[in-house]
Amino acid sequence: MGESYTKRKIMITGYGTVAKEFVKMINEQKERYRESYGFYAEIVGIIGSKGMIYEEDGIDLVTLLSFGKGSQALGQYAQQKQIYIQAPELKGDVLIECSPTNLETGEPALSYMKAAITKNMDIISVSKGALVQALPELKKLADTNGCRIKYSGATAAALPTLDIGEYSLAGSRITEIEGILNGTSNFILTSMSEDSLSFENALKLAQERGIAEANPALDVQGYDSACKILLLANGLFHKTWTLNDISIEGIEKVSKADMQFAKINGNDIKLVASARSIDGTITLQVKPEIITADNPLMNVKGTNKGILFHTEEMGTICCIGGASHPRGAAAAAIKDMLNLYRG
Amino acid sequence: MGESYTKRKIMITGYGTVAKEFVKMINEQKERYRESYGFYAEIVGIIGSKGMIYEEDGIDLVTLLSFGKGSQALGQYAQQKQIYIQAPELKGDVLIECSPTNLETGEPALSYMKAAITKNMDIISVSKGALVQALPELKKLADTNGCRIKYSGATAAALPTLDIGEYSLAGSRITEIEGILNGTSNFILTSMSEDSLSFENALKLAQERGIAEANPALDVQGYDSACKILLLANGLFHKTWTLNDISIEGIEKVSKADMQFAKINGNDIKLVASARSIDGTITLQVKPEIITADNPLMNVKGTNKGILFHTEEMGTICCIGGASHPRGAAAAAIKDMLNLYRG
Repeated sequence: MGESYTKRKIMITGYGTVAKEFVKMINEQKERYRESYGFYAEIVGIIGSKGMIYEEDGIDLVTLLSFGKGSQALGQYAQQKQIYIQAPELKGDVLIECSPTNLETGEPALSYMKAAITKNMDIISVSKGALVQALPELKKLADTNGCRIKYSGATAAALPTLDIGEYSLAGSRITEIEGILNGTSNFILTSMSEDSLSFENALKLAQERGIAEANPALDVQGYDSACKILLLANGLFHKTWTLNDISIEGIEKVSKADMQFAKINGNDIKLVASARSIDGTITLQVKPEIITADNPLMNVKGTNKGILFHTEEMGTICCIGGASHPRGAAAAAIKDMLNLYRG
Repeated sequence: MGESYTKRKIMITGYGTVAKEFVKMINEQKERYRESYGFYAEIVGIIGSKGMIYEEDGIDLVTLLSFGKGSQALGQYAQQKQIYIQAPELKGDVLIECSPTNLETGEPALSYMKAAITKNMDIISVSKGALVQALPELKKLADTNGCRIKYSGATAAALPTLDIGEYSLAGSRITEIEGILNGTSNFILTSMSEDSLSFENALKLAQERGIAEANPALDVQGYDSACKILLLANGLFHKTWTLNDISIEGIEKVSKADMQFAKINGNDIKLVASARSIDGTITLQVKPEIITADNPLMNVKGTNKGILFHTEEMGTICCIGGASHPRGAAAAAIKDMLNLYRG
């Protein structure tokens, strides 16, 4: 490639840890992306909770990165550059959606995405709320406006899940999907398994290490896993299921005795999100399950994730990895961007 | 999609087990491919060792599939349809290269591919010989003629390897690759490990089950693994290494005692093909290695394969599966075809 390349103006909504990591990667790697993929990303605007910074010819990323994150950093940037914090307005070619996930309303992401689509912007979403609420509607709107939606960052991030189903298994019929899709609950179960901790103590350890949030409900009650299997199953089986179609059980009731009993038999307990064929119907569920020693998911330890695709033509394909950290999530958004525009 | 679709004329070189499976899949699934991927494949010609059958408006697949495989089946088809066996000539839009692998000359695949490229045909290769001999040259020729080369079928087939590196890890820097890339030698080592067989007896078992060929040299001496890591490493690191750049050691010298010693410590022995960074230089090798219990490749059993990608941005990603059978290899060619032309 080298000489000819595609250039797109990028707008980011939300400026938390993942968005900042995305900006950092663009700042460090944009010339490599241009050379290797024939794509040049220019970040022109970032919308935070208190308004947006926007520079038609590109935000000065080095200056921006010298500040922290969130609206405070955007304010400091505006002050340093002597520009105004403007009212939010979607402009440019691509929206990178990184605002906080709200599973009940999907907002503010949903409004941002709709506004972006009506301006013919492609969308790369890292946040899950709007997708869980309204992906079928958003896809229809995107089709009408000739734009595309990618969301690797919302479906287990650095672990390839949707990619494998859509690209690596193209043409093959996927019959069932089983995954360990939440790093926090897997860390807790791994600590219970390997260090004989109770659920409470393992959760405490996860919180001390910054793996679990102060309010760990979304992770340990299984909702995060449910969102991911929902997005994967809808995408790969071409359905429009909602969270209400999923039977969800978290890991809070897994006891030391349950774990000990599993281990006596050489097994383990993991939180499995699945789309399985039961009596000829695909059934979605999230629940703690016994994993036997010969299951490749056995080796998904700590904050790692893993997924199994059962197919008619290619047998069973397992993918493991994607340790949960913000850089991995940002890298998933970068991947989506390069795959949309590479030469 | 549904109404509008892309149609391409397909020519196949070689009509062995994998090619026949490819024809079977097209025959069974072509309408599903058209509906789901907006692509319709019409097989117009098949070249065997004694000439070709060619029908401008598409070969009658049901009739063809009623015969066996190889030149004999092509002859029977010609007789039944009252057409001539013609001198081989590359025609159409896409070449599916399935002729027998010859690692020394790359022929006849190499000549077929060059002829196809000069006629602006895209190439999907299942056979390895020509790619191992001349992929850089073929790629250059393809660039000049505006055509594309895909070869999932030659790089561990149903196990996604190149796909993951190029697509699922787009933008991330791969630092090292380690893989169990040969199903036959992995079956032998698994039998040695689980059933305490000697190499000789495990090989005999593999031959009895039709897993190892009468002449198992390519598999057990490590050459098949070497070809795959060569194609992967050249593709993903943008290099032009040859087989001579790889240190290759097979599994014939792995003894019962070696295996027992590994197992005492909870480890296992696998044939690992790797591209690792040693003193800052990527070094390619194939050799039997100790695999520790925490390595996700530990669970690659029997004829399965597995691969680890170490990356800067996404951590370590492991993919396991792709049980070795002709349907999986044919499915890999179908995948490449759909990814080239999908709507």
